[in-house]
Amino acid sequence: MNKTGLSERGARCEAPPIEWLMRLVLQRPELISLAAGFTDNETLPALEVIEIVRERLKNARQARSALQYGLTAGLPELREAAIERLAQADTAATGTNIKTGSAAETRYSPDQAIITNGSQQFLYLVTEALCDAGDIVLVEDPTYFVFLGIVQSHGLRCRGIRMTPEGLDLEQLETVLESLKKSGDLPRLKFLYTISYFQNPTGISTPFGTKTAALKLLRRYERAAGHPIYLVEDAAYRELRFAGKDAASALAVPELNKRVIYTGTFSKPFSTGVRAGYGLLPEPLLTVVNRLKGNHDFGTASLIQQILAGAIASGRYEKHLAVLHRRYKTKAKIMGDALREHFPASVEWQEPRGGLYVWARLPKPLVSGPDSPLFKSALKQDVLYIPGRLCYAEDPTRPIPDTEMRISFGSASDMEIRRGIARLGKVLHDLIDKPAKKRRS
Amino acid sequence: MNKTGLSERGARCEAPPIEWLMRLVLQRPELISLAAGFTDNETLPALEVIEIVRERLKNARQARSALQYGLTAGLPELREAAIERLAQADTAATGTNIKTGSAAETRYSPDQAIITNGSQQFLYLVTEALCDAGDIVLVEDPTYFVFLGIVQSHGLRCRGIRMTPEGLDLEQLETVLESLKKSGDLPRLKFLYTISYFQNPTGISTPFGTKTAALKLLRRYERAAGHPIYLVEDAAYRELRFAGKDAASALAVPELNKRVIYTGTFSKPFSTGVRAGYGLLPEPLLTVVNRLKGNHDFGTASLIQQILAGAIASGRYEKHLAVLHRRYKTKAKIMGDALREHFPASVEWQEPRGGLYVWARLPKPLVSGPDSPLFKSALKQDVLYIPGRLCYAEDPTRPIPDTEMRISFGSASDMEIRRGIARLGKVLHDLIDKPAKKRRS
Repeated sequence: MNKTGLSERGARCEAPPIEWLMRLVLQRPELISLAAGFTDNETLPALEVIEIVRERLKNARQARSALQYGLTAGLPELREAAIERLAQADTAATGTNIKTGSAAETRYSPDQAIITNGSQQFLYLVTEALCDAGDIVLVEDPTYFVFLGIVQSHGLRCRGIRMTPEGLDLEQLETVLESLKKSGDLPRLKFLYTISYFQNPTGISTPFGTKTAALKLLRRYERAAGHPIYLVEDAAYRELRFAGKDAASALAVPELNKRVIYTGTFSKPFSTGVRAGYGLLPEPLLTVVNRLKGNHDFGTASLIQQILAGAIASGRYEKHLAVLHRRYKTKAKIMGDALREHFPASVEWQEPRGGLYVWARLPKPLVSGPDSPLFKSALKQDVLYIPGRLCYAEDPTRPIPDTEMRISFGSASDMEIRRGIARLGKVLHDLIDKPAKKRRS
Repeated sequence: MNKTGLSERGARCEAPPIEWLMRLVLQRPELISLAAGFTDNETLPALEVIEIVRERLKNARQARSALQYGLTAGLPELREAAIERLAQADTAATGTNIKTGSAAETRYSPDQAIITNGSQQFLYLVTEALCDAGDIVLVEDPTYFVFLGIVQSHGLRCRGIRMTPEGLDLEQLETVLESLKKSGDLPRLKFLYTISYFQNPTGISTPFGTKTAALKLLRRYERAAGHPIYLVEDAAYRELRFAGKDAASALAVPELNKRVIYTGTFSKPFSTGVRAGYGLLPEPLLTVVNRLKGNHDFGTASLIQQILAGAIASGRYEKHLAVLHRRYKTKAKIMGDALREHFPASVEWQEPRGGLYVWARLPKPLVSGPDSPLFKSALKQDVLYIPGRLCYAEDPTRPIPDTEMRISFGSASDMEIRRGIARLGKVLHDLIDKPAKKRRS
């Protein structure tokens, strides 16, 4: 018992990096932030939302639904629309006709879906439903850093699974599963968390075949675990694809898809202020997560759900998505061009095909952490990036890599992207050239 | 370790009564529900929301704020408006000029406030921040039944503190504190949860003097507890007062208010679909709850907050409140008249002065639980009420009372209130008269 009277979870809660980054941004309005995962400010659907609200609230039945409490699991129209879109995408990606239906017949069922306050809340609910302090989750190396806040406050242990340029590293997944089996820790392993489309932070997508293989691997270790080991597939960036082909979700894997927990979002593709996500769960998790959601807030705000349902039903969602794709493609190209022009050739990065991020790997001995000369010099030049180390879980089997940076073309303007990258490039050149000069002199 | 792989909290989650009540309502559209805590359907502010959305989204700066992520703690404009309203109400109630300011100077500070998805989420976050399984909370006897779902899933122990017609029973509060001290359980006691205005379910308000005395009592036991014992004041129905005078909140108690956690809501006074609440916390809880909120969903949807800020700034919120007060006053009178006409005189109830509920006490030996002849006969007559027993915590020191019913005039129409009460009255007369007849025969 501590003197503050806080719970174990309350006492454990550490300051999230976002707290400190937000403070920096607020204190320095002149700062060019290439850090935030905010979306583009030029294309926010203001007129669309005005129109949808008018349409929906002029209809008495819809107005009543929009302004009153609804079901904990969410507006049926929105759940149906989410599943329909998902089934269409997976149909296109697999080439087989995926049908939506009742929970018993298919994993593509509105009955299995829950609407949440962004996919973030869904990830929280799933973690809460599955994990006690000391349990283990597998995360990608690197991974979504806000998820690491959930993990930290729950007192969970992590193992990182490397991201290769072709997605999740299956070999390392097997090695880690094997080592957990040997150490007797497998009964504490609850799930593998993967951001499978244009991953945050690396921008890498994991192909369908790799997801299938990962599900098979996890299944092989279930006997030793004594309970299901789930694959939590976070598809937050799936709809932000502006180049290349879509891959099917893990829900399209026959049989094994009963171990898949899938989450998508309407926030990034439409508006982060009209914020809602959704998730699909197999039983008994579905029931538990619905009950937890009932305790959390008994349902996401009805107005938000009506607006999103209206956006999809009226075709405005799809139109807005096309606008976003053009916009992000342009911004990604601006960033790519600026990176080629200003960054030292020894910095490695990949041209993004979707999502909001570029992941840059620095040459040795450069480091990128919050205390590094690079981060401090960048700040002095009024540029903020996300130090790569913030995206790595604490994993006792490896040190935390400190040589990468996440730079986002999401919310920065074209001009800010050009200026930000030019300044970052100058700072990098200075740091790379200086010691070289010193060595020479 | 269970075979499902669920966490302790996940495995603990029981079916909430609302799940089963909702199913009943959905299955039987002809049902007159006097059960739900929904608000009036005739007065939903549809036109107001259309206008506010247009105004806010036509302004480029506000549109950007409404459609983009915001701060985890919530929109500063809305936090300021919430605290300003609160300070005004407490100023009027105490007759002393309460100033808002920085967290260091006063408890009335926007810096200490957080916007949540309804006050429900705030209650969840506070419980999560303070309580581990096995901890104890004091709740009113009876209390808000959805809060009992939070308590149950967290594995908490409860002690019920009787509600007298004049509010919380201070004598019993002292008796319970004393018994916890004697049993050595005081270090597990975290807070007293009170719904201090037009309580859900009894409609009773607890006066300022009683709140002051309760804070003093809690303070006396802190030394034995070894940590702060908070008063969680839930003022969800405070703005739904249509008769009588307002009382100041516990925040107006000098010195001791550093132990007060206060929560209010915009949902019931404006729209349950434009759903947001707020809470005020002292440190270190404020920091912890903000971090937990960051992990849950990093902030309530910006659009919802902009609409509510717009409603307050434009005066529409206040105007709507006046409409609601007239409407609920009328509906409460319709219910009161119907109760006087149709209910047996032996059923006790009080004329409501605010909120959404009437609490009726049945004469012996009538019971009201879900398995009772009363509940079943009422359902046969297509009327649903909340059985009183659902509003009582599990408390090992007393049996759960089973002789009360919560009937709401919130969402039912005038006609439904009249019909519903007439039918309920007939069922009650039948049950009271029948055994009497039998005895006579």
